[in-house]
Amino acid sequence: MIDFPYLEDLCIRTDSKIIMLVVDGLGGLPHPDTGKSELETARTPNLDALAGRSVCGLTTPVLPGITPGSGPGHMALFGYDPVKFLVGRGVLEALGIGLELGPNTVAARGNFCTVDDEGKLTDRRAGRIKTVESAPLVELLDTIDIPGVSVEVHPVQDYRFVLVLRGDGLGANIPDTDPQVVGGPPRTAVAAELTSERTARFANAFIDAARGLLGSRDRANMVLLRGFSTEPEWPEFGRSYNLNPAAIAAYPMYRGLARLAGMKIITTGADFDAELKTLADSYSDHDYFFLHYKPADGAGEDGDFDAKVARLEELDARIPAVIDMNSDVLVVAGDHSTPAIMEAHSWHPVPLMINSRLSRGQGSDAFDERACRLGALGAIPATNLMLLALAHAGKLAKFGA
Amino acid sequence: MIDFPYLEDLCIRTDSKIIMLVVDGLGGLPHPDTGKSELETARTPNLDALAGRSVCGLTTPVLPGITPGSGPGHMALFGYDPVKFLVGRGVLEALGIGLELGPNTVAARGNFCTVDDEGKLTDRRAGRIKTVESAPLVELLDTIDIPGVSVEVHPVQDYRFVLVLRGDGLGANIPDTDPQVVGGPPRTAVAAELTSERTARFANAFIDAARGLLGSRDRANMVLLRGFSTEPEWPEFGRSYNLNPAAIAAYPMYRGLARLAGMKIITTGADFDAELKTLADSYSDHDYFFLHYKPADGAGEDGDFDAKVARLEELDARIPAVIDMNSDVLVVAGDHSTPAIMEAHSWHPVPLMINSRLSRGQGSDAFDERACRLGALGAIPATNLMLLALAHAGKLAKFGA
Repeated sequence: MIDFPYLEDLCIRTDSKIIMLVVDGLGGLPHPDTGKSELETARTPNLDALAGRSVCGLTTPVLPGITPGSGPGHMALFGYDPVKFLVGRGVLEALGIGLELGPNTVAARGNFCTVDDEGKLTDRRAGRIKTVESAPLVELLDTIDIPGVSVEVHPVQDYRFVLVLRGDGLGANIPDTDPQVVGGPPRTAVAAELTSERTARFANAFIDAARGLLGSRDRANMVLLRGFSTEPEWPEFGRSYNLNPAAIAAYPMYRGLARLAGMKIITTGADFDAELKTLADSYSDHDYFFLHYKPADGAGEDGDFDAKVARLEELDARIPAVIDMNSDVLVVAGDHSTPAIMEAHSWHPVPLMINSRLSRGQGSDAFDERACRLGALGAIPATNLMLLALAHAGKLAKFGA
Repeated sequence: MIDFPYLEDLCIRTDSKIIMLVVDGLGGLPHPDTGKSELETARTPNLDALAGRSVCGLTTPVLPGITPGSGPGHMALFGYDPVKFLVGRGVLEALGIGLELGPNTVAARGNFCTVDDEGKLTDRRAGRIKTVESAPLVELLDTIDIPGVSVEVHPVQDYRFVLVLRGDGLGANIPDTDPQVVGGPPRTAVAAELTSERTARFANAFIDAARGLLGSRDRANMVLLRGFSTEPEWPEFGRSYNLNPAAIAAYPMYRGLARLAGMKIITTGADFDAELKTLADSYSDHDYFFLHYKPADGAGEDGDFDAKVARLEELDARIPAVIDMNSDVLVVAGDHSTPAIMEAHSWHPVPLMINSRLSRGQGSDAFDERACRLGALGAIPATNLMLLALAHAGKLAKFGA
């Protein structure tokens, strides 16, 4: 949680409401032809007008130059130091496909890979086989039975799957079996501490069984396991900030991250319009809403500049519906930048605005990277955003006499 | 002290002089009708001209969103981490009325309160009785005699007083007797550690005696005690920075805070003109002056935008007298913002300028929130200000070979 020991003393329960709209992959970089970023290119009259009566700035998710995954990006916005509160890859993949984990459960991310006749790795991703090829293989692996533990294998996408082990006395302190280079054999699962030894034995039994089931194939004839992890027990967002928080997110992974923070997850539909309806329906029940908008990130990762512009314009058209909720504080933030020209997440600071009755007269002309850089909030660590949101909502008492 | 382990090695004693003018509650927010803050509204030709030949920026007192009291706000400017060096409320109230505490002394802030026939709290502030009603009650409480300890009760204002216990073997680790809610009885003083047990017994003896003296009254018939604390022993400002520092402040609390930092307190008069005369008279005796300007903060807390503007203009008229001292470095800073529209301290970053022969050509057009945001210093933690002041004074050696 935010590194401020007096936080719980200062957080006041009030009737005011906070909506935190997180636009996944919000920030971008200028298109080489126009010199304008996705946000600068998009026609976003509603976001721009809101920026005029908001206070704007930039958030740095982790550190300058550090590109966050979805986990660190979101946990930082929630005020959790993303270095300290790091989600294991196995758990994150499981959350991403909507699995419930809970206690006594270890998850690992699996890759189908290809080995030669001597068992040496020739391709760590089995030629990036597509889901159509991997799906039946996942079903095959899901039949594996290991005495003493419950084994589940779930499909993710393409060459990726999730292995879930459920049972007593499991630990997750096991380095990856993926050696990261080809030419040698996959590693054996070796426990790094005593409490993970049973789990390592189960993992090796699973790997042996998988080799037996897949071994006759030309490719995707072996598996690699990475990111053994358990669902962490972290401080509760609601208790830390004295809030009654809810998460509204169409995509499972973001619901999963919110659940790690102990937020109430409200069932919603498959897109942002469904989320907006859920927000309106549940508005009286909570004082903080994490509202997630996904499509901009995907377009950025695809390297499709125009599509990202379009996704931002589609968001803009829905901003009036968010404003109409009349929350005391409306935050528009992003978990990280996803510049289309990079086709990936990036480290670049992310535009931010906070709208409240206290933000008038401090506004910016537009909501984009350049305008926010000159905004009155300045550049702040993303982990400090919650303090500002609470302050603007009148939910933070004075520190010290 | 500043989290930089080589600080004492780098600080050089020189003849150069630093004046740090702290304008209490300096920062503000735009007036809704004009869109201009108090500083932007005030006609401050002298401050603006000084900004033109100074380097400007903004300070964050504690963290974004955290509103500091006077203690944290000032200690941060002096370079003390305000989270680590936190003054207890009892001590701060005592400093605020000019008491000398010293060792073997515990101070607590007291409230007159009202209880019903069953001893249950009905009003934690006794109807906010005025000083005219509370003053004789304070005199009455000051007659209380407890064997084994010296008891003093001092008036503060309205329903507030300070209890000072002096004697051997006292500790201050005692939670408040104020339960923060009405409907139940006040709490008994209970020591949270062994070394505070005697003090808790004395406190309960005081409370019993107070109940006996006040019990026949309709209101203000009981007392609550909060913020038991002792004067902390902190690193000396002068030793840490290799300075011979002095504080000039018309208001007792700010002299008290400077005393906690080990500064020499120079006797001065009741207002800023008196402070300026004191500065001139003592100028040859010290190499660092903390000079405090109070009136802007009070106007902000009163919610009187025009009065705050007027107090800033009155300060501006006196800036030439400060400049005439020809100090090598002149800092104009604030301990926190006090926007009139909020009628309270706030978390907003505070304008800052540093004038020295090294600041020319980096200046801003004006001295206000907007201009300082774009200033060459950028936004810095308030705890880093002393490093910059020392550097501009040529008092900081190179770090590392």
